[in-house]
Amino acid sequence: MVVHRVQPYNAEPPPGALACHALTPLDTFYGRNHGAIPDLDVTAWRLVVDGLVDRPLTLSLDDLRGNFPERTVVATLQCAGNRRAGFLRVRDIPGEDPWGPGATSTASWAGVSLADVLAFAGLRPEAAHIAFTAPDISEQGGPPEPYSASIPVAKATAGEVLLAWEMNGRALPRAHGAPLRVVVPGWIGARSVKWLQRVTAQTEPSGGYFQSVAYRILPAEADPEQAGPGDGISLGPVALNSAILRPADGARVSPGPVEVTGYAYAGDDRTVARMDISLDEGRSWLQAALDPPASPWAWQHWRITVDLPEGETAIIARAWDTTGAAQPEYAGHLWNPKGYANNSWDRIAVTCR
Amino acid sequence: MVVHRVQPYNAEPPPGALACHALTPLDTFYGRNHGAIPDLDVTAWRLVVDGLVDRPLTLSLDDLRGNFPERTVVATLQCAGNRRAGFLRVRDIPGEDPWGPGATSTASWAGVSLADVLAFAGLRPEAAHIAFTAPDISEQGGPPEPYSASIPVAKATAGEVLLAWEMNGRALPRAHGAPLRVVVPGWIGARSVKWLQRVTAQTEPSGGYFQSVAYRILPAEADPEQAGPGDGISLGPVALNSAILRPADGARVSPGPVEVTGYAYAGDDRTVARMDISLDEGRSWLQAALDPPASPWAWQHWRITVDLPEGETAIIARAWDTTGAAQPEYAGHLWNPKGYANNSWDRIAVTCR
Repeated sequence: MVVHRVQPYNAEPPPGALACHALTPLDTFYGRNHGAIPDLDVTAWRLVVDGLVDRPLTLSLDDLRGNFPERTVVATLQCAGNRRAGFLRVRDIPGEDPWGPGATSTASWAGVSLADVLAFAGLRPEAAHIAFTAPDISEQGGPPEPYSASIPVAKATAGEVLLAWEMNGRALPRAHGAPLRVVVPGWIGARSVKWLQRVTAQTEPSGGYFQSVAYRILPAEADPEQAGPGDGISLGPVALNSAILRPADGARVSPGPVEVTGYAYAGDDRTVARMDISLDEGRSWLQAALDPPASPWAWQHWRITVDLPEGETAIIARAWDTTGAAQPEYAGHLWNPKGYANNSWDRIAVTCR
Repeated sequence: MVVHRVQPYNAEPPPGALACHALTPLDTFYGRNHGAIPDLDVTAWRLVVDGLVDRPLTLSLDDLRGNFPERTVVATLQCAGNRRAGFLRVRDIPGEDPWGPGATSTASWAGVSLADVLAFAGLRPEAAHIAFTAPDISEQGGPPEPYSASIPVAKATAGEVLLAWEMNGRALPRAHGAPLRVVVPGWIGARSVKWLQRVTAQTEPSGGYFQSVAYRILPAEADPEQAGPGDGISLGPVALNSAILRPADGARVSPGPVEVTGYAYAGDDRTVARMDISLDEGRSWLQAALDPPASPWAWQHWRITVDLPEGETAIIARAWDTTGAAQPEYAGHLWNPKGYANNSWDRIAVTCR
């Protein structure tokens, strides 16, 4: 793993490790944390469901397993800072980690549908947002506060949002949120709260730092130190993105056919419709073979075999989604003060000799 | 109106005529036709609902009015060829009309929800697509055929898709589909079939030319004459787009503050989160004031007052949606053989003196 920070632990796999696996192995799955990883006693742990519900609930893991149907969803999680390294080549972003394309991983998650739990609790019509609270303490946003986030009721009740205790058929590891985490398919990873302790139905989004101040796209000219609650575009559904996983950036390859592989991820409820590769700076494009998605919320791997000329070649990748939208060209035009959502064309340089 | 073709009638308003009106006046609303405009006898007209339904229906306009609740939705319609003129400046597209940004208009539509009609007919679970057939005959796709299109069941039953007989509070004009048309909010105009005669539930998309061959993004290198059914990205939900409506491209303005206005439209179920204007080729951006959308499927007007230097200035506009996605930069990178879905940055030149 490429470790960006030891405390709190933040690490991503090298790009090549994400190739070939439709489901990312647990020890390869990226880790994005805002505080120390909690060590919860499962027997004492309870989930509280409160706020604008008719029947507030306090549930053990056995209560969840026994009272609601189990549901499995394949979902990609992607950190909003994925590919920030591409922004750093344009302009520095102090205090934020230089994530490559490895802050994106996919698992098969099992647990219960949040929609079922909210229906059982009797969600009131005036509830507009569902907030999640966890015990990991972050010191990032000024005074230390427990991590929290929220999603709108429409997404929370759409069925695919899980309270998950299983990951790729195995017990959810502590590093990934045991005993229970939220999985919000198609949305930025920051909303898939780990070590979940409380689900609250409310009229407003979470007032926590990571919902109201962080994970927002500010205008390039804005001073992030001056940004207050509500400023900028609050990130939720993920925007169309893709990355080259193999060969590695800067690799040397021998003359002859070279297989280029990567992932594409449409985010939200969309899928990828076409994957383009250019060897001539975007003047012409080749279409890569694209895997079908394992679910509407899963990445798609792609591959293409190309012949490279001798010397250095830039290989560029871009995806198109089912609306006919393509990724924008240049990271510099998307640069923003916290470095979120770099979904510009991906590019590597390969030397053939 | 700027008339691209008299028979079949295809016309758009000049950009400035779309400014300031949240709802486009009926005589300003763009017209996109593939055949002659039918003249239907309303008393004899019936809507047939058939295919994979338990109770096939034959309904008069009075049956529709009397048996289902009336529903009103504000929705923007946008032709997939909107802003094709920007592609033509890159490379010619023989046989396709040079639409500007005026192939986009917004109305308040009233009628019944397609979801209610399908529920009444008893939509069977094996139905995956809802096809619409109209009597206007197109000669565009080889042998003449009646216009048809389809949408997936998930969209058809989402509630907002209307069978509409009213537009901006007035009887639907013949030119816009009287006595009854489909309105598919957030999707390309080609799916909002006018002069509707038949709704068919089926397992596959419509096999008609305008679903299976046209309205698809082919790779730039493809020969459109060789394209067959199923080739390319089938267009449905509209991709994020925007346009400058005033001043006009090429306008001369006097020194002093100049108001720049336009529309932005996120398409699908998305809305626009930010609108940027650049006077320096995208090196820096100003944020325009953005109107809230009248519905999740409506465009948003925006405006900003700028001071222009003496001489010629390029004014560039781009929108961001609620996923943090921005429009791509350059039309040349999106060019495709039929010229669909140009959602690159919009640009006008204005001379100040």
